[in-house]
Amino acid sequence: MGNRFLLSELAAKIGAVLQGADAEVDGIAAIEEALPGQITFLSNPKYARHARGTKASAVIAKEPVPDAGCAFLLAPNPYHAFACALELIHPPERPPAGVSPLASVHPGASVGRDVSIGPFCVLEEGAFLGDRVALLAGVYVGKGASVGEDSLLYPRVTLYHGVSVGKRAILHAGCVIGSDGFGFAPSEKGYRKILQVGTVEIDDDVEIGANTTVDRAALGVTRIGRGTKLDNLIQVGHNVGIGKDTVIAAQTGISGSCRIGDRVMIGGQVGLAGHLEVGDGVMLGAKAGVAHSVSAKESPAWSGIPAVPHKTWLRMAMLLPSIPELFRRVKRLEEGKSEKEEGSR
Amino acid sequence: MGNRFLLSELAAKIGAVLQGADAEVDGIAAIEEALPGQITFLSNPKYARHARGTKASAVIAKEPVPDAGCAFLLAPNPYHAFACALELIHPPERPPAGVSPLASVHPGASVGRDVSIGPFCVLEEGAFLGDRVALLAGVYVGKGASVGEDSLLYPRVTLYHGVSVGKRAILHAGCVIGSDGFGFAPSEKGYRKILQVGTVEIDDDVEIGANTTVDRAALGVTRIGRGTKLDNLIQVGHNVGIGKDTVIAAQTGISGSCRIGDRVMIGGQVGLAGHLEVGDGVMLGAKAGVAHSVSAKESPAWSGIPAVPHKTWLRMAMLLPSIPELFRRVKRLEEGKSEKEEGSR
Amino acid sequence: MGNRFLLSELAAKIGAVLQGADAEVDGIAAIEEALPGQITFLSNPKYARHARGTKASAVIAKEPVPDAGCAFLLAPNPYHAFACALELIHPPERPPAGVSPLASVHPGASVGRDVSIGPFCVLEEGAFLGDRVALLAGVYVGKGASVGEDSLLYPRVTLYHGVSVGKRAILHAGCVIGSDGFGFAPSEKGYRKILQVGTVEIDDDVEIGANTTVDRAALGVTRIGRGTKLDNLIQVGHNVGIGKDTVIAAQTGISGSCRIGDRVMIGGQVGLAGHLEVGDGVMLGAKAGVAHSVSAKESPAWSGIPAVPHKTWLRMAMLLPSIPELFRRVKRLEEGKSEKEEGSR
Repeated sequence: MGNRFLLSELAAKIGAVLQGADAEVDGIAAIEEALPGQITFLSNPKYARHARGTKASAVIAKEPVPDAGCAFLLAPNPYHAFACALELIHPPERPPAGVSPLASVHPGASVGRDVSIGPFCVLEEGAFLGDRVALLAGVYVGKGASVGEDSLLYPRVTLYHGVSVGKRAILHAGCVIGSDGFGFAPSEKGYRKILQVGTVEIDDDVEIGANTTVDRAALGVTRIGRGTKLDNLIQVGHNVGIGKDTVIAAQTGISGSCRIGDRVMIGGQVGLAGHLEVGDGVMLGAKAGVAHSVSAKESPAWSGIPAVPHKTWLRMAMLLPSIPELFRRVKRLEEGKSEKEEGSR
Repeated sequence: MGNRFLLSELAAKIGAVLQGADAEVDGIAAIEEALPGQITFLSNPKYARHARGTKASAVIAKEPVPDAGCAFLLAPNPYHAFACALELIHPPERPPAGVSPLASVHPGASVGRDVSIGPFCVLEEGAFLGDRVALLAGVYVGKGASVGEDSLLYPRVTLYHGVSVGKRAILHAGCVIGSDGFGFAPSEKGYRKILQVGTVEIDDDVEIGANTTVDRAALGVTRIGRGTKLDNLIQVGHNVGIGKDTVIAAQTGISGSCRIGDRVMIGGQVGLAGHLEVGDGVMLGAKAGVAHSVSAKESPAWSGIPAVPHKTWLRMAMLLPSIPELFRRVKRLEEGKSEKEEGSR
Repeated sequence: MGNRFLLSELAAKIGAVLQGADAEVDGIAAIEEALPGQITFLSNPKYARHARGTKASAVIAKEPVPDAGCAFLLAPNPYHAFACALELIHPPERPPAGVSPLASVHPGASVGRDVSIGPFCVLEEGAFLGDRVALLAGVYVGKGASVGEDSLLYPRVTLYHGVSVGKRAILHAGCVIGSDGFGFAPSEKGYRKILQVGTVEIDDDVEIGANTTVDRAALGVTRIGRGTKLDNLIQVGHNVGIGKDTVIAAQTGISGSCRIGDRVMIGGQVGLAGHLEVGDGVMLGAKAGVAHSVSAKESPAWSGIPAVPHKTWLRMAMLLPSIPELFRRVKRLEEGKSEKEEGSR
C-alpha cells in the first residue's frame, strides 16, 4: 500500500478535476486489475470500455466515460497526471545518507552533503560526488570522475576515470560509462590500439539503462544531452554526441562520431553507421539500419535496412511477400509475349 | 578427468543398452576429439561416419553404426542420455555452504539452511534466500528480494528490491533483474519519469544468461514462467509475461507488455514490438522483427522484418537477389510492348 | 596536458619527417579542435581543407597540404604514426603494483611479480595472475582461471572457473568470460540442462569490450585468437573459434560452434547462425544475418539478411524502395496485354 489521499486532495495536487464521489485511495494499478481504494488511468480513449468494467475508485482520463461506475480525475494530459499521482502515492525511496564502512573511499576523493555510499563502492582519487548523491552497492567511480547532485546510481555502475555525470541522473545496474572506444590502426604486425584519451560528459536529468555501455572519446568528448533517456543494453560509440530530450530504446547501437539531435526517438535494435547525423525530432523505427544522415525535413520517420522514409518502407514491406507472385506474373507476361512473337513469325 | 564408471554401470544409470565390450570410462568429449577411456555421442544419424573414426570407448546413439570399432550405449533420446551421462561423470561443483566474512548481510535479511554467500555479496533488509542457495562473489539481493531453494547465482547478479526468483534457478554473471522499465511521459518541459512500482517474478527451474536484463513492471508484475531458458544479453521489457518451457536465444529484445506463450522458441537478435502476443509453440527465426501478434495456428514459424510466415519469407528471401534482374526483365517487356505499340501506329 | 616534445623529437620517435618550423607540443586533438602547442592528424586526404584551417602546431599526414599554415609530420601510415604519438604524449597510466587489503585472495591462488589487485577483487583457489597483471576493482577470477602477464582487467570483469586469458589482454568493465553455453535437451518434462564442462582460451593481445559475453564450450574449448579485438555487448557462443587479428564491432552475436577465420572484419549487430565458417579476410556488413558458411573466394564482403555478396545486396537494396512502382508497371503491362487480347477477339 502507498500513501493515502482523498481523491479531491489528489486532484488538486496533480492538476486534475474530480468528477464523481470523493473517496480515499492508497494504491494505483492497471485498469483491469485495480481494486476499490485504488486509482488507475486511461491514456488512450480507444480503451474507454475498460473504464466501464474497472473496480478502481477513480480513473485519470481526459474525458469522463459515460456509464462508468467510478469517479474521474480529469486532466488534459492523463499520462502526465498519472506520473504525478504515482509519485505521491508511491514516493521513491532513497537509501539513507551515510558511507558504508565497507566502501573504499580514497582520501583524495571528495563528496558533498548527505551522500549515500553503499558497501563495496569504490571512489578513486579525485572522484567527486555532489550533495545527496546515492550509490548503491558496488558502484565504481574512477579517478577524477564526478557525479552531480541528487543522482542515483544502482549497483555495479562503472564510471571510468575522468567521466562526468550531471545532476538528477539515474544510472541502472551494470551500465559502463567511459570504456575505451573501438579504435585500432591496422599495421603489418596486426592491429595497434589507438589510445582513447578523451572522456564522456553526461548532462543533467539523464537516465541510462541496465548494462548499457557508453564509450569515451578517442580525443575530445562523447556527450549525452540534458533530459535524454537511454534504455538497457545500448551501445554508444566514441565521440558520439546526443542532444536533449532524446529517447533511445533497448539494444540500439550508435557507431562512433554520430551526431543525434534533440527530441529524437529511436526504436529498439536500431543500428547507426559511423559519422552520420540524425536531425532534431527524427523518429527511427525499430531495427532500422541507418547508413546515411537523415533529417525530419526529408522525412519525419525512417525504417528498414538500409533506412528509407517510413512511408516508403511501409509500402515496400507490405509488397515483399508478394515478390514470388510478381516473378510468376512477369514470367507469364514474357511467355505471352514470346507466344505472340512466335505466332507472328 | 571425471568420475570413473563401467560402461555397463553407466548404461543402467542413463537408461541405455550397452552393445559391445564393457570398459571403464572417466571422460566425455566430442566425437572427433574423444580418446579411449572416454564416451561421446551421436545425436544426428547423418554424422554416423564420425562414429567409424572415433577413438572413444563408446558412443551414445539411437542405433548402432555398422563397422564402428567402439561400443554403443543405445538410447531412444541420445541427447538426453548424454546430458545424464555428463552429470554423472562431471557432477557440477557447488560452492561449500557458509557465509563469507566479507559479505554484507543486513540483520533483517533471512537465509535458509546450507546457503553459500561469497565475498562482497550484499543482502539488503528483508532479503530472503531459501535452503542451499549459492551466491558467488558480488551478488546483490535488494530489499525484500527473494531467491528460492537450490538456486545458483553467479558473480555480480543484481536483484533489485522486491523481485522474486524461484527454486533451482541459475542466473549468470552480470544479469540484472528488476531494473526500471522504460516509461516516460512527454511534457512541455521534457520527459517525466513514470515510476516503475511493479516487480518481477521468476518461476522455478529458470536459467538466465550473462548480462541479460529483465525490467520490473510499471504496475503489476513482469513474469517468467517455469522451466524457461534465456540466453545472454537479452532484454525483457516491463510487464512482459513469458510462459513455461520457452527458450530465447541471445540478444533478443522483448518490448513492454508482450505475452509470450509456453514452449515458444525464439532465435537470436529477434525484436518484438510492444503489447503483442506470441502463441504457444511458435518459433521465431533469428533476427525476426515481430510487429503484430502471431499464433502457431496461422503459421508454426515466423521470420523476416516485419515477420511473416517462415515459408513465405523463405520464398521471398530467395528471390530478393534477383530483383535487379526482374527490373531489367520488366523494362524489356515495356520496351517490347512500346515497340509494338509504336509499330502498330 | 600530456608529455612535452619538440616536433623534431616526436618525428624521430614515430618514424615521421618534420616539414616546417620546429616547436614544442604537449597535446593532441581532432583537427578542428586542436590549438597551438598541439598536434593533430589527417588520415583521409579528402579532408585536406581542414588542415588549412587548423590551429594545431603540426599535422601528421601522408603528404603536406599546400597553403596550410602549420608544420607537417609526414608518415607513410599517418593513422599508425598518430597512434604512436598518442602513446608518447599520453602514456597510459597503470594502477600501481600492490594487493588491496580489501581484496579476497584465496591462499591457493598464485600471482606473479608487480601485480595490482584492486579492492573487492576475488581470486578463487588455483587462480593465477602473470607478472604485472592489473585488476581494477571488483574483478572476479574463478577457480583455476589464469591471466597472462601485462594484462589489464577493468572493474567487474568476471572470469568463470578454468578459463585462460593471454598476455597483454585488455578486458573492459563487466565482460563475462566462461559463462555456460546455451544447451538444453528437450524432454517430456521440459528442458534438461546440458552441463557445459568445456572452457574458454583467449590468446595474447586480445581486447574485449564492456559487457561482452563469451560462453565456455560444452565440451572442449571456445577460442579467441591472438590480436583479435571485440567491441562492447558482443555474444560469443559455446565452442566458437575465432582466428587471429579479427575485429568485431558492437552487439554482434556469434552462435555456437562457428569458425571465424583470421583478419575477418565483422560490423555491428551482425548475427551468425550456428556451426558455420567465415573464411579468412571476409568482411561482414553491419546487421548482416549470416545463414551459411562464406569465404572471401566467393565474395570478399557479405551483407543483408540472409547475407549475400555485398555487391548483390547493394544492387538489390537500392531497388527495394521501387518495388511498389514495379508492381504498378507489371500491372500496366498485364492490362496492356489483356486489352490487346480483348482487342484481338
